[in-house]
Amino acid sequence: MRMATKTVIITAGGIGKRMGSDLPKQFLLLDDLPVLAHSIERFHRVDPEIQILVTLPDTWRTYWEGLCRKISFKIPHTLVDGGKERFHSIRNALKLVTGELVAVHDGVRPLVSRKLIFEAFQLAEESGTALPVVPVKESVRFVEKLETRALNRKNYFIVQTPQVFRREVLQKSYELPYHEGITDDASLAEEAGYEIRLLEGEEFNVKITTPFDLKLIRLIYEENKSFYE
Amino acid sequence: MRMATKTVIITAGGIGKRMGSDLPKQFLLLDDLPVLAHSIERFHRVDPEIQILVTLPDTWRTYWEGLCRKISFKIPHTLVDGGKERFHSIRNALKLVTGELVAVHDGVRPLVSRKLIFEAFQLAEESGTALPVVPVKESVRFVEKLETRALNRKNYFIVQTPQVFRREVLQKSYELPYHEGITDDASLAEEAGYEIRLLEGEEFNVKITTPFDLKLIRLIYEENKSFYE
Repeated sequence: MRMATKTVIITAGGIGKRMGSDLPKQFLLLDDLPVLAHSIERFHRVDPEIQILVTLPDTWRTYWEGLCRKISFKIPHTLVDGGKERFHSIRNALKLVTGELVAVHDGVRPLVSRKLIFEAFQLAEESGTALPVVPVKESVRFVEKLETRALNRKNYFIVQTPQVFRREVLQKSYELPYHEGITDDASLAEEAGYEIRLLEGEEFNVKITTPFDLKLIRLIYEENKSFYE
Repeated sequence: MRMATKTVIITAGGIGKRMGSDLPKQFLLLDDLPVLAHSIERFHRVDPEIQILVTLPDTWRTYWEGLCRKISFKIPHTLVDGGKERFHSIRNALKLVTGELVAVHDGVRPLVSRKLIFEAFQLAEESGTALPVVPVKESVRFVEKLETRALNRKNYFIVQTPQVFRREVLQKSYELPYHEGITDDASLAEEAGYEIRLLEGEEFNVKITTPFDLKLIRLIYEENKSFYE
């Protein structure tokens, strides 16, 4: 059986305000390579034929292109103008997608394993959608204004990326109008009426949100280098 | 105004099956001191008069006492037999409580700050209950059998310890019968009809659940040593 063709949309739209650093977090270095380059490489390693689209704010395009030249980063990828919100960036990217299966991945999750990427594509090929989740390890609580109540943690999961979809699923989902409640691609696909299929995510597939997360990721990387190389 | 007298019940009942180590995680070393000793020290530093009760499985009592002698750990604390579940351990400890305010703290959260401990006691003194929470940083999802749906992450918080209560609040709560759905002390107090007051927890107040958490905690500790000393 022929394998479905693949695209990954890597979102690198963040302007980095939360990091206490002028440089957006996708450009920070992990073992001499920018975080974004790591993320790109993970997908390229799974399938050298994969189409790689990177959504980047227009203002950072020249910087990134210069950085790629400086470090001789050769993995082919296409830059897509980042839109106002992540939603608009992905909608822009969707116009260029050629793969039958489309992954969306946070550029600031450089430690995703090839295994998870592969399995997510596989599940999406079978079922249309694939969403990696990890259990919440601690107790969780619902809070809304003055209302607060304990929840059964067994029912709550943290959502990761890559989230993978058959192309038409993602395209249909992004025809929906933008609103602020869209938290991730799977939530949008759900809104569009698709059933979301889950698979097991990874403890180390951390998203860099705070300066501490980057330290954490450096620690994980140092200890598991052979796994990523 | 006289300050309320204080007790902390530190739970160290874990037999460590999840850690891939024969030694329960509360005894593992962080900068040459067992994790449990760190946790005890944090509370002692906030109030040298605080009553410290440590719930420990009977089978580990001799080990811990020997360890304390070996490292000359001098902070006074009373060992309480751990019960079948955390619930029973705390119920045992409650019989010995003398403080007007009672904190319950996971022995495997050695990096709680003195500030958070102090503020939690203060809030409990004013309002009866105090529960530190931190926002969920990533998207969350509800999963139950075949049902799954995206949630608005703004409404979901991760629960930490120390959870602090006026003594009578905790005592009344622990008169309820045990059941498996009790996830933490605040959820029990809520079941008993008390309103739960929240305060902001701390990113670094991590609970050691996996071997990786311990590495993470060592990293945080090394970088913030002066803060804890």
